[in-house]
Amino acid sequence: MFKVSVCYGQPTDPAAFDDYYSTVHTPLALKIPGLTRFTAGKCQSLDRSDPPYYMVASLYFDSAESLKHGLTSPEMKEAGADVANFATGGATLYSQREDVLLG
Amino acid sequence: MFKVSVCYGQPTDPAAFDDYYSTVHTPLALKIPGLTRFTAGKCQSLDRSDPPYYMVASLYFDSAESLKHGLTSPEMKEAGADVANFATGGATLYSQREDVLLG
Repeated sequence: MFKVSVCYGQPTDPAAFDDYYSTVHTPLALKIPGLTRFTAGKCQSLDRSDPPYYMVASLYFDSAESLKHGLTSPEMKEAGADVANFATGGATLYSQREDVLLG
Repeated sequence: MFKVSVCYGQPTDPAAFDDYYSTVHTPLALKIPGLTRFTAGKCQSLDRSDPPYYMVASLYFDSAESLKHGLTSPEMKEAGADVANFATGGATLYSQREDVLLG
């Protein structure tokens, strides 16, 4: 399983971030070819510290080829360019080939 | 869907980390009650920069109650204490309630 994680830093205006994310950015992200699963969730720390990110989105692909195709697609380019329009806390991205150890 | 992400910084000895993780830490993590899915994968950046983490593990639970029960269990305490035995690059943890937007 191949995954891209998009880790959003704390935005200056969380309500504006949330609104833009759901109404504009998500529809753009859903157009990325080869995307098999797409999840997103706000982050909580496990202690009383601040969480490292405001929200993390996970984009799943079935294969390394599909991931590469998705990442280099015009749709990804458009979604990537859109990040600057709302991610006032920045965004950190990385990809993984995930091994399933349970489930 | 409820998830805990464990983000491991670059270890001083990656081979020793990998060996310890698979032979000692994974069996401990798999004992955590309520765990429904457990994945792990090395991180790659999407450009030529260093990825933010060496490896990220994801622990899934079915509900907020199950997550809380798992996090406060003796098995989680044991797995958590074990992290100091191999995570020479540190570990950053956070939890999420994930919304499934596709898949």
